[in-house]
Amino acid sequence: MIFILYLIKMCYNMDIEKVIYMVNFRNDYCFIAHDEVLKQLMEYNNKTFVGYGLDEVSEEAKQLIKKEIKNENVDVHFLPGGTITNKVLISHLLRPYECVISCDSGHIATHETGTIEQSGHKVLTVPNYEGKIKAEDIKKVFYTHPDEHMVKPKMVYISQPTEFGTLYKKEELLQISKTCKELGLYLYVDGARLATALTSHLNDITFSEFASLTDAFYIGGTKNGLILGEALVVLNEDFKKDMRYSIKHFGGMYCKGFVTGIEFKTMFTNNLFFEIGKKQNEMANKLYNELLNIGVKFLYKQETNQIFPIFKNEIIEELRKYFMFELWERKEEETIIRFVTHYKVTDNDIEEAINIIKKLL
Amino acid sequence: MIFILYLIKMCYNMDIEKVIYMVNFRNDYCFIAHDEVLKQLMEYNNKTFVGYGLDEVSEEAKQLIKKEIKNENVDVHFLPGGTITNKVLISHLLRPYECVISCDSGHIATHETGTIEQSGHKVLTVPNYEGKIKAEDIKKVFYTHPDEHMVKPKMVYISQPTEFGTLYKKEELLQISKTCKELGLYLYVDGARLATALTSHLNDITFSEFASLTDAFYIGGTKNGLILGEALVVLNEDFKKDMRYSIKHFGGMYCKGFVTGIEFKTMFTNNLFFEIGKKQNEMANKLYNELLNIGVKFLYKQETNQIFPIFKNEIIEELRKYFMFELWERKEEETIIRFVTHYKVTDNDIEEAINIIKKLL
Amino acid sequence: MIFILYLIKMCYNMDIEKVIYMVNFRNDYCFIAHDEVLKQLMEYNNKTFVGYGLDEVSEEAKQLIKKEIKNENVDVHFLPGGTITNKVLISHLLRPYECVISCDSGHIATHETGTIEQSGHKVLTVPNYEGKIKAEDIKKVFYTHPDEHMVKPKMVYISQPTEFGTLYKKEELLQISKTCKELGLYLYVDGARLATALTSHLNDITFSEFASLTDAFYIGGTKNGLILGEALVVLNEDFKKDMRYSIKHFGGMYCKGFVTGIEFKTMFTNNLFFEIGKKQNEMANKLYNELLNIGVKFLYKQETNQIFPIFKNEIIEELRKYFMFELWERKEEETIIRFVTHYKVTDNDIEEAINIIKKLL
Amino acid sequence: MIFILYLIKMCYNMDIEKVIYMVNFRNDYCFIAHDEVLKQLMEYNNKTFVGYGLDEVSEEAKQLIKKEIKNENVDVHFLPGGTITNKVLISHLLRPYECVISCDSGHIATHETGTIEQSGHKVLTVPNYEGKIKAEDIKKVFYTHPDEHMVKPKMVYISQPTEFGTLYKKEELLQISKTCKELGLYLYVDGARLATALTSHLNDITFSEFASLTDAFYIGGTKNGLILGEALVVLNEDFKKDMRYSIKHFGGMYCKGFVTGIEFKTMFTNNLFFEIGKKQNEMANKLYNELLNIGVKFLYKQETNQIFPIFKNEIIEELRKYFMFELWERKEEETIIRFVTHYKVTDNDIEEAINIIKKLL
Repeated sequence: MIFILYLIKMCYNMDIEKVIYMVNFRNDYCFIAHDEVLKQLMEYNNKTFVGYGLDEVSEEAKQLIKKEIKNENVDVHFLPGGTITNKVLISHLLRPYECVISCDSGHIATHETGTIEQSGHKVLTVPNYEGKIKAEDIKKVFYTHPDEHMVKPKMVYISQPTEFGTLYKKEELLQISKTCKELGLYLYVDGARLATALTSHLNDITFSEFASLTDAFYIGGTKNGLILGEALVVLNEDFKKDMRYSIKHFGGMYCKGFVTGIEFKTMFTNNLFFEIGKKQNEMANKLYNELLNIGVKFLYKQETNQIFPIFKNEIIEELRKYFMFELWERKEEETIIRFVTHYKVTDNDIEEAINIIKKLL
Repeated sequence: MIFILYLIKMCYNMDIEKVIYMVNFRNDYCFIAHDEVLKQLMEYNNKTFVGYGLDEVSEEAKQLIKKEIKNENVDVHFLPGGTITNKVLISHLLRPYECVISCDSGHIATHETGTIEQSGHKVLTVPNYEGKIKAEDIKKVFYTHPDEHMVKPKMVYISQPTEFGTLYKKEELLQISKTCKELGLYLYVDGARLATALTSHLNDITFSEFASLTDAFYIGGTKNGLILGEALVVLNEDFKKDMRYSIKHFGGMYCKGFVTGIEFKTMFTNNLFFEIGKKQNEMANKLYNELLNIGVKFLYKQETNQIFPIFKNEIIEELRKYFMFELWERKEEETIIRFVTHYKVTDNDIEEAINIIKKLL
Repeated sequence: MIFILYLIKMCYNMDIEKVIYMVNFRNDYCFIAHDEVLKQLMEYNNKTFVGYGLDEVSEEAKQLIKKEIKNENVDVHFLPGGTITNKVLISHLLRPYECVISCDSGHIATHETGTIEQSGHKVLTVPNYEGKIKAEDIKKVFYTHPDEHMVKPKMVYISQPTEFGTLYKKEELLQISKTCKELGLYLYVDGARLATALTSHLNDITFSEFASLTDAFYIGGTKNGLILGEALVVLNEDFKKDMRYSIKHFGGMYCKGFVTGIEFKTMFTNNLFFEIGKKQNEMANKLYNELLNIGVKFLYKQETNQIFPIFKNEIIEELRKYFMFELWERKEEETIIRFVTHYKVTDNDIEEAINIIKKLL
Repeated sequence: MIFILYLIKMCYNMDIEKVIYMVNFRNDYCFIAHDEVLKQLMEYNNKTFVGYGLDEVSEEAKQLIKKEIKNENVDVHFLPGGTITNKVLISHLLRPYECVISCDSGHIATHETGTIEQSGHKVLTVPNYEGKIKAEDIKKVFYTHPDEHMVKPKMVYISQPTEFGTLYKKEELLQISKTCKELGLYLYVDGARLATALTSHLNDITFSEFASLTDAFYIGGTKNGLILGEALVVLNEDFKKDMRYSIKHFGGMYCKGFVTGIEFKTMFTNNLFFEIGKKQNEMANKLYNELLNIGVKFLYKQETNQIFPIFKNEIIEELRKYFMFELWERKEEETIIRFVTHYKVTDNDIEEAINIIKKLL
């Protein structure tokens, strides 16, 4: 009998001096930015701009996004990071007693230090299935909150891909969207790594189909090559009014909005956004398959750029001498770790990694 | 096999006109007040008082409470209701990012419409065992919240008795208290029905021992014969400073504080507080045993004044013609209901109830 | 010209043992309740009720209130106190970045320990004129808050009568109401002492006319003879939905709602509500006129049951031996104090008071 | 005589297409970044970093800052923007009922869309004198908030320089700091443009003296050549514990913290931070003196890089064809505007500006 003991402290608390690593598999936000992004910033640096995202380049970027999702009738806002984006969107329209439903592994439920609660709203959790929420669980939690002695469910929060790198398929998204509409719930999607979802070899939904199923979602930039920035896309009319007030009120208004404007314009010019996502997935796929070949087990199948190999506890310390990664969950004899592949990982990095791990097994 | 479907709507949404009930088993707050309480209010009504709980009678009441728990060194505050008392105590000292641990059936976790979240704090839940929290689960949740990307556990909330009428035994309370001290967590006890806990035939802890294990707790008045009022008892020095500011800030300052003062003075004069609790338990015990005798099953054993009999679904509608009660949980073929006995229930009420139910089975 | 201006500590911090007072002029909430209220509670104490204000007597009380304001189409909710009533109404509908406008002497702006801010909303203040707000100042503050870098005004809060016992006349209320409608602002009136406003010798507006000018207001009970309770009357459809959720969420749901139901039924039976208000005014009027006769100056004219006489600083200590009252403002040589007359003050009390003060002058 | 009418809508709402401007005097955050900053980012872009500000370059930057203020015993945190920095610091330690004192022109009081209130705290305002707060007003507001029926003052917020570009002199800062210590209040300084204060020709306090008078302050980066970022410096031990929790909880944790680390390292290498500030001031000084020479009046004297010339209303529209600037306040016949000079303004820009304005007068 095995039972989960506890999540262990994040890697960044390790004594980093002693790690002579080959390659950084810790996350996809360990570089400053994609070279093209910095290049564009250099080129625009002889101009002046209107602040707070009201400049022309931000407008160009917004038009490019609208074109991608084939919908002119949306509002786009650029915010500095994912947590503040979630906070602003979720808190903007909910009445004080209304709450948001998330699966128990959802980022807002676990890794945002209670920032949704800071705005006064409960995050009602339901079980996750490989990081995903089930439409029937949404119904169940909705019907068990029938009156004013309990919070009132009003929104569903999901991530695409999930915290475990897994992917909602089109059919699942349709079910969830339909359930939300039936119950009068808003559907909001955290797309911190949306590029990897849309370019996954398992993805079966187009960007515009995906967008049309939501009331709002955000397109993650920080984990896809930007210095900073996420693009919040608002489809539902209810949310549009006064959104800029909420952005400022909750502390998410970014003074030099034109910077994120330039970045997103760069992303959605020449398909760069998707190329980065695709590259991140391909490296994960390669690493996953090669590890499978040498007998490594995984928590879940690889679907995007996060994979969760399982190693004997005694190997972990050795691995830490060569790689940066996060410890995910420690069990009695084995530890699950997380490898994330970013856009600067090379084929060579993967091959050397496999060679090292092969020797340690 | 399918089981629990959903909690069903609270009884008060039934069409009350059609209920020609014999006896009200819905709750213990269905009467205005114990006669002695109203009598005392009448007698004091020729006097004038200083407002906001700073009068002499409130001071007398506080002294009586200190005497009961054999501790002069506590602060006592009278508040109008349980939810606001929980909100004030929990929100007074927690830093913004700190959270409170409760079992998933805890009142603050389920039945307070997110009022703790309204103050910005997450309620971290762990499984309940017959309504109770286990010390080892407190440890587990504490150690899985190790850094600033998650909320920081700082307080444990329990109810004595629990939402299911069950009782923490002395040994369990000692374990929980010890765990809290080890981990640097505050222990706060919701005593909405504390009188029934202290007078239960299964209780093995004195009032003063109980008090000494907590950092703060409240003595429930509303469910024990008062018009309104709970007595918040604060033992830990950390909480004492500026508590009256938090009471006012969160909306719990009661203008005519002397009314709750008079009520609690009445309660702790001639043992009335405990007599009411005892009476409420005795009626539950009698009803429980007689129902057992005629073959009724229960969710849990009777420990205080709430019992949870299980009936076939087809009987429920019939029962509703004779009794007021709450529907607790509906399964496929059976429904769990809740009977609460209050201090005005008589032996005769119980006997007639048994006669009716016997016929319906 | 110099004038020190600070409020001095509330009277209740005086050493109350040494005050051998004749009569309590400190406030109108120094008694438990009007005798008729307690009598009715005694009579109803043999019955059981549905909780949380969903009982039949509360319904009867609501009907009586609707009849008084000649409007069937309103929602009425009973809450335990004024501060929590203000908090619930104001926070229920405002979006996070929206704010409420109050004059700088408004109760929510000064004497509620930041409870509106606790819900996340700024209280924007404008100057008071004898406790009143001017329609033109509402316009000014509205137009100087034009964009998302500032809070967005959405509601106006006034008190009738004001914190200084002064009265808005019909014409003033019409102006304010009209301005609010023009600007898309809600108008909410704090009626903690509404009975004294409606029965003032200077009042020129009927209860139903008054009600029709507001989006919501509350009828104060606590300061007009109740043990506890205020009746929140909601006229604007926007506010009606889910109000009970907000009442619970912010901590204002009162378990034994039937108690406030019975109290308000008593108030609006046989005109008791207005008789109490009228009596409170008459005593203030008598006291005011007799003090004027013996040469006492006042901060404002008497309009309801609060008057603000000005005495030389050296007399204050002497006065404190005979009367309970609040110190309002201390200047260099004189102190403004507040006398409030309640429904148990008698003609004889006034006459003895005048005799004492005459000797001290 | 009638004066101030209303603040008018921010410039950025003008139809920007039609402005064929010569030079942007609207603000000091209209460029992407100082060239040296972008150059450093390019150089570091081949490395990977630990996230969330725990990398080595951020550590180097922190050491440089500690050296500048000659104090090893401080904590430094990098945050993305000024509003979120204010929110985090102010909300981190205040108890729920505690408030912050600011002058009425303070950024937190007027231009942050209620973000301090969003955390539950009132901003108590006192009058400003050329943008500055007086120590005696702090005392006055402290003593008029004596008990639990009012919020409790616990912190003073000032800006150096102020919203009007004016400067606190050493003596004024000493007075304010002393008053805060006497009253048990924390002193927090918003240094959005701190570089211009420290390099003003009127400045009479060193950086380390300045720092030592505060409990915390922030060093503004965004308005001094950074892409994004402010450095929060915490001196008082009370604030140090768990600050990273509050940064995440309120939404101010920046994923790629190493970017702000690199930026601040760049700023405090070779004195760049001060050179930029100095340049910004010099251009303002030149513009101010030349405008004085041609007869332009000003709201206040030039002390840092913001100046407030006053023009006849009919000229404003003409000016808008040549310059970008903010309208500050419109009076009957004249309008106050704001010119801000940034580090890319040249002598030539100033001269051409003067030529144009001369013709318009």
